[in-house]
Amino acid sequence: MTSPRQHEAAEPLADLPDYGDVCAAASRIAPHATRTPVQQSSALDARCHAKLFFKCENFQRTGAFKFRGACNAVFTLDDATAARGVATHSSGNHAAALALAARLRGISCHVAMPSNAAAVKQAAVAGYGAAVRLCEPTLEAREATLSDIVEEVGATVVHPYDDRQVIAGQGTTAKELIEQAGRLDIVLTPIGGGGLTAGSALAVKALLPEARMVAVEPAGADDAFRSFRAGKRLPSTAPRTIADGLLTSVGERNFALMQRLVDDVVTVSEDAIVAAMRLLWERMKLVVEPSAAVPLAALLEGGLSTPAVTAKPRIGIVLSGGNVDLDRLPW
Amino acid sequence: MTSPRQHEAAEPLADLPDYGDVCAAASRIAPHATRTPVQQSSALDARCHAKLFFKCENFQRTGAFKFRGACNAVFTLDDATAARGVATHSSGNHAAALALAARLRGISCHVAMPSNAAAVKQAAVAGYGAAVRLCEPTLEAREATLSDIVEEVGATVVHPYDDRQVIAGQGTTAKELIEQAGRLDIVLTPIGGGGLTAGSALAVKALLPEARMVAVEPAGADDAFRSFRAGKRLPSTAPRTIADGLLTSVGERNFALMQRLVDDVVTVSEDAIVAAMRLLWERMKLVVEPSAAVPLAALLEGGLSTPAVTAKPRIGIVLSGGNVDLDRLPW
Repeated sequence: MTSPRQHEAAEPLADLPDYGDVCAAASRIAPHATRTPVQQSSALDARCHAKLFFKCENFQRTGAFKFRGACNAVFTLDDATAARGVATHSSGNHAAALALAARLRGISCHVAMPSNAAAVKQAAVAGYGAAVRLCEPTLEAREATLSDIVEEVGATVVHPYDDRQVIAGQGTTAKELIEQAGRLDIVLTPIGGGGLTAGSALAVKALLPEARMVAVEPAGADDAFRSFRAGKRLPSTAPRTIADGLLTSVGERNFALMQRLVDDVVTVSEDAIVAAMRLLWERMKLVVEPSAAVPLAALLEGGLSTPAVTAKPRIGIVLSGGNVDLDRLPW
Repeated sequence: MTSPRQHEAAEPLADLPDYGDVCAAASRIAPHATRTPVQQSSALDARCHAKLFFKCENFQRTGAFKFRGACNAVFTLDDATAARGVATHSSGNHAAALALAARLRGISCHVAMPSNAAAVKQAAVAGYGAAVRLCEPTLEAREATLSDIVEEVGATVVHPYDDRQVIAGQGTTAKELIEQAGRLDIVLTPIGGGGLTAGSALAVKALLPEARMVAVEPAGADDAFRSFRAGKRLPSTAPRTIADGLLTSVGERNFALMQRLVDDVVTVSEDAIVAAMRLLWERMKLVVEPSAAVPLAALLEGGLSTPAVTAKPRIGIVLSGGNVDLDRLPW
C-alpha cells in the first residue's frame, strides 16, 4: 500500500478530506455502522485525576473502528466502479472491515494475504465473504498479488489509512464521541498509519476548537512522534511493539493533516500499554486489543504534557478495537 | 447466611416481594446504580437462530448485578438502623456490592471473610471501605464471626439472596432489560441462590405475561433444577462448577417465587459454559465471568426446550457479572 507508484500518482494536498467529508461519511455509514457507546469508570477517573470518556470501538462491527473508513470508502464508489469489487493486502482489521463493507454493498472483495498469516485471521476475512489469495510473506509479494488482482478483475484498491474517504470515515469516531460526551478538553487517539488520528482531528477542531488533539504512539514504533517534531515524514524501519495495530508508519495525507490539526504526539512504554490494557479489562470489563490501550497508557505514565486546562480535565479516549488472541494474552 | 436460626425466625410467605417492590427498588437505586446497556451480536444471533438481547451487568458498579439488591436493601433501612451499619459473610460479589452501597449511604459495612479468601477479593472489599474481619474458612466460623459483629455493633445482616429487598433490587435488572429491548419471548437468567431469577421473574411476568421465564444452572450445581421438579428444596451437598457464583443453593423465598413464576429450569455442561464465555469475549468483546455465560451455554447446547413461539424468538439474557481472575482463564 506504500508503493512509490501510488505516492507519485497521488496529489495528496489536492485530496485531503475536510470536516464536511466527515459529516458526509457519518450519513453514509449510519445505516451500517454501530453507534458505539461511550463508557466511563469512576475507578479510572480517580486514578487519572480526570473525567474519562471511552469511545468503545471494540464494539464496532468487525471489532474495530476500521469498519467506518472501509464502509465509507466502499459506499462512496459509483455503481460501475463498485461492481468490479474492492481489494486490499492488509492482513489485519482493515481486511475484515473491507470484506464486510463489500458484502453489505453486494460487491466482491479480494484480499492478498501472506501465507503465514494466522489461520484465525484468514478464516475471519473469508468468513466476511472475501476472496483470500495467499502469497509469500513479503511486502513485494503482497503488492504483486494485489496488482494481479487489480489487473484481472479491475477491483478498486482501498488503502487502509492513506485515503481521503477512509480518513473521513474514521473521523466519524470522534464526531460521535463529542456528540455523546459533550465538551472535552482533550481527545486522545492511538496512532499507526494515522487514519483515526487525522479523521478525528478534523472533527475535534471543527466541533471543539479549544480542545487539544493528541496522538499516542508506542515508543517502539515512534515514527509519528519523530516525524511530528522533524516536520517531515520519517518512517519506522524496524518497529517493535505489542500494539500490532500501530506498526505501520504515518501516511502522506495523514501526516499533512496531523501537521495542521494535531497539538502533540506522545509515546508510551510497552509496560504501560500492558498495564493499561489490563486495567481496561479488569475495571471496565472491556476486551480491547493492545493498540486500544495506548492512550490510557499515556495517562497512567504521566507522559501527557497537559496544560492545566482545568483541575479535572474531561478527556475523550478512543478505544480503537478489541481483536485479540485470547490464547496469547500479555500477562 | 443459611443458619437454622434465620430460617426459623423468618416467615417467608409473609415477606415475599411483588412487582411493586421491584418498581420501588428501581426508584430507590436509580441515583446510585448504572443503567447498564443492552448489547447485541449479529454473529451470535445467527448462531442461535434467535434475536438476542444481552443485559450487561458486567458493567454494573462492583462488576455484577449484586449491587442492585445490596443497594436497595441498604437504602431501605430506616436511619437509626442504618446508623449501626450492615454486615455479611459472603466473600464474593455480594460483599463488594454491600460495601459500596454502605459507603454511598455513609454507614459502616462489616464483612466476615475466611482467611483463605483470595487476597485480591479481600483487597476489593476493603477497597470499597468495608471492615474485613478474617476467620477460619468454615461456614460455622463465618457465621460465628458474623454473630459477633452483630452483637458488638448492632449491624443489620443483609442476606445475599434470601431477602425481600435484595430480590426486589435484583428484579430491576429484568425490568430495565424489558424497557430497553421491548417485547421478549424468553428471558434467561443464571441461577445460584435465586435472587436474580426470582426478582427478574417478578418483572417478566408483570410486564410480559406471555414470555417464558427460564433459569439456567450448571449441571454440577443443579439443586434448582432438582428442586423445581421435586416441588421442594433439595440443596446441593457438593456442588462443583467453574461458575463459582452459582455454587449456592436456592433460598427459601427465592424458591417460593420460582415455583409460582418460573416456567423452566435447565442445566448446562461445564464445556458449554466455557465455550459460551469465550464466545462472549471474542465476538462481543465483553469480559464476563463464567456464571454470566451459563444462559448462552443453554442456547449453544440446545437444551432449551423452547415452544416454537416464533421462527426467530427474541431472547433476553442477563450477563450477571464480569469479575474474573485474568490470570486464571479457563482456556
